[in-house]
Amino acid sequence: MWVVQPLILHEYADSGNCYKIRLTAALLGLTLERRQYDILRGETRTPEFLARVNPNGRIPVLQVGDRMLPESNAAIWYLAEGSGLVPGDRFLRADMLRWMFFEQYSHEPNVATLRFWLSFVGEPNLEEAQRRQIGARRAAGEAALLLMDEHLAARAWMVGDAVSLADIALFAYTHVAGGGGFALADFPAIGRWIARMVALPRFEPMAG
Amino acid sequence: MWVVQPLILHEYADSGNCYKIRLTAALLGLTLERRQYDILRGETRTPEFLARVNPNGRIPVLQVGDRMLPESNAAIWYLAEGSGLVPGDRFLRADMLRWMFFEQYSHEPNVATLRFWLSFVGEPNLEEAQRRQIGARRAAGEAALLLMDEHLAARAWMVGDAVSLADIALFAYTHVAGGGGFALADFPAIGRWIARMVALPRFEPMAG
Repeated sequence: MWVVQPLILHEYADSGNCYKIRLTAALLGLTLERRQYDILRGETRTPEFLARVNPNGRIPVLQVGDRMLPESNAAIWYLAEGSGLVPGDRFLRADMLRWMFFEQYSHEPNVATLRFWLSFVGEPNLEEAQRRQIGARRAAGEAALLLMDEHLAARAWMVGDAVSLADIALFAYTHVAGGGGFALADFPAIGRWIARMVALPRFEPMAG
Repeated sequence: MWVVQPLILHEYADSGNCYKIRLTAALLGLTLERRQYDILRGETRTPEFLARVNPNGRIPVLQVGDRMLPESNAAIWYLAEGSGLVPGDRFLRADMLRWMFFEQYSHEPNVATLRFWLSFVGEPNLEEAQRRQIGARRAAGEAALLLMDEHLAARAWMVGDAVSLADIALFAYTHVAGGGGFALADFPAIGRWIARMVALPRFEPMAG
């Protein structure tokens, strides 16, 4: 499995969605060129970014040659298809995607959003409409973490018996959930799974 | 591409997420057994449903033999992998997943949620916290529809030059967006694309 075109990651380094792509590339031994955008200053909403990189105004975008691929979980699929990070079994491959869609629908909008609001924007700077949503997002984020914890109680990895893109997608915001005020100590199986992730050969941490 | 195990769809028939799976099966000529749950009466949150069908308390779930596959877009991937509904080109396959993640992150939480609130729950029955979110979800849903409309202005299908799972995933809630108070007449390219979808051989409508 070789990607011969240059790979450019359009990103904001502290975003877990961007980190997924860096971690996948690291585990696969792929090299990424990195371009930074400051989302706090609206650099992904400029007319130029919308026209040239992503009409949806979001990072990450993985650039493959001159083609743009938004959506973090689509980008890690592109990098890893055919590798050991994607199960060879058809049902398990779909089950991996199941957890990646769960991540984007039930986990990221709660766990990642609270981290962004509380650790990056800062609670005093939130709009009133955002402040009113904190309680509901806290409850939904805790439900997502509990579901993961129960799933991981009797197994080492989210899908099958090896690390896959499902683990990478969920690891990104789970391991920094403390930044959103979530208490990871309440989820012991997640703690053991995080330790397994960090011990992977070629693992790269989020910072830096 | 043959699925030899019995396929059972655990669903709520009016849900667009469930319809995606029925439409994919229809286009592929696959037969599904269907089991109904009334989400308005909490039938997907019972202890039995959580233990036996989906710990996340949601439909649809595609049952393959005795294995459960939640998440609509993972289920249609399972059904269609290796068929003409999934592009043969690696980048286009990832780009298809890009639109499927866009659907679950930027489209469904707005377009589908407003339809559910306004056409199924009923505006007088909404909680105050829900009512306060209508404006933001309306704006985000219109942005998602505009992005689709601009993307479809110069092409027939969302990805490549043939219908794919990206079209099916986005069609499900787009074609009934009027139920959420969205004005589809404002999006002419979407209108032409809906006409192409409905004209597909073996197309099945949502109702029934």
